[in-house]
Amino acid sequence: MTIQIIGFSGSTCTQKVFNVLEELGLSYEFIKVKYQDIKTPEYLATNHPFGKVPVLIDDGFKLYESRAIARYLINKYQGTKNSIVLIPSDVQKAALVEQFISVETSYYTGPLHKLFEQVVLSKYFEKTADPVIVKDALEEINKVLDVYEKLLEDKDYLTGEFSLADALHCPYGNYAIKNGYDDLYNNPKRPNVTRWWKNITERECWKKVASTYELF
Amino acid sequence: MTIQIIGFSGSTCTQKVFNVLEELGLSYEFIKVKYQDIKTPEYLATNHPFGKVPVLIDDGFKLYESRAIARYLINKYQGTKNSIVLIPSDVQKAALVEQFISVETSYYTGPLHKLFEQVVLSKYFEKTADPVIVKDALEEINKVLDVYEKLLEDKDYLTGEFSLADALHCPYGNYAIKNGYDDLYNNPKRPNVTRWWKNITERECWKKVASTYELF
Ligand SMILES: N[C@@H](CCC(=O)N[C@@H](CS)C(=O)NCC(=O)O)C(=O)O
Ligand SMILES: N[C@@H](CCC(=O)N[C@@H](CS)C(=O)NCC(=O)O)C(=O)O
Repeated sequence: MTIQIIGFSGSTCTQKVFNVLEELGLSYEFIKVKYQDIKTPEYLATNHPFGKVPVLIDDGFKLYESRAIARYLINKYQGTKNSIVLIPSDVQKAALVEQFISVETSYYTGPLHKLFEQVVLSKYFEKTADPVIVKDALEEINKVLDVYEKLLEDKDYLTGEFSLADALHCPYGNYAIKNGYDDLYNNPKRPNVTRWWKNITERECWKKVASTYELF
Repeated sequence: MTIQIIGFSGSTCTQKVFNVLEELGLSYEFIKVKYQDIKTPEYLATNHPFGKVPVLIDDGFKLYESRAIARYLINKYQGTKNSIVLIPSDVQKAALVEQFISVETSYYTGPLHKLFEQVVLSKYFEKTADPVIVKDALEEINKVLDVYEKLLEDKDYLTGEFSLADALHCPYGNYAIKNGYDDLYNNPKRPNVTRWWKNITERECWKKVASTYELF
């Protein structure tokens, strides 16, 4: 049976899972839902108890939370369709991938989500962006990317080699860039971040995800 | 060489790692640092680029971020000292552990950290708690634990069996309880949460961590 993903088309968390599916060379079916669909008692009871997307269904097995879905797909399918390695088998190398997934979750996604809410989601909900929150978010993102600049010294990817940790960074940065904040990622003051960003977003898989699943 | 952990004595993230070390039956050395120590240029360059604890050193291998450290210790040492299983080898069972780690990270820790800042950290920094923030945090925690109540129906642990996902929940709940919010976890309205909380915090390992590493 084909892998199914319940999600929103342009949602960053859903795109993270699509990016992993594409990298692993897996085919899948996208079950597109709307905001109001994921808050019904039925959805909460059968799909995601916190009323979120994405949810995976793989041959009757249901799983929620994007990074858990990503790890599951990798554990089960990595190496079956191609030779891309998103989590290496070496214990220390795998640990560094996990370290940078935690960096993405703990320090990167927060301020980028704040910016996303103001400059992207606000349009959807017909609100106007709050310039103070935008300014705060940008300050925070700049600080975080200044740390990335050091982390990426002499490296093409966060751990040295392309991994799940890199792949998870694409969706939020993409929205920032498409909404006028290109200089966060493409900036002569951050040559390492600029090089890394090119490396991870010019992959065919991400380009396909970014062009297929649009928010509006 | 003994495993070393750089951390704060009572820090929740450091306690998460101690709990895992104890469960796996590993011996370790605690390198106690202070708040000001983790913001120095040297600490940022050599230990944690975002100026946080904990950091692990295992025979020259350095790793930061508590959940990444936990997974590394399990991948490397699980089964070597005792038969406790914190992440099972079965792919679906492991996926469910990851799902609940993500639930802990995404929905549980946020509001509990908010409460912790107000009722615990504020004392340390000689500030007074903001009753509005405390009220908001409690409302959010109650909502989250109401979802847990359903998730734990007919189950002793989040995935059915004790795992890393359960172990990571102990530190924040412990501080809430010790600071007057016992009814969040011990409440006849939430019998499943009450049973689960007893199951995970009455383990010898957690009792040792909670009584050894105090914040003040
Ligand atoms: N930690 C979750 C986050 C899920 C999440 O927040 N998804 C968003 C879309 S990217 C959502 O469902 N938003 C609807 C809502 O929060 O009400 C994951 O990684 O899957
Ligand atoms: N995502 C990190 C969080 C680390 C963290 O926030 N640690 C706290 C102690 S529990 C800390 O270092 N706080 C000092 C600060 O934020 O300045 C982890 O899981 O290790």
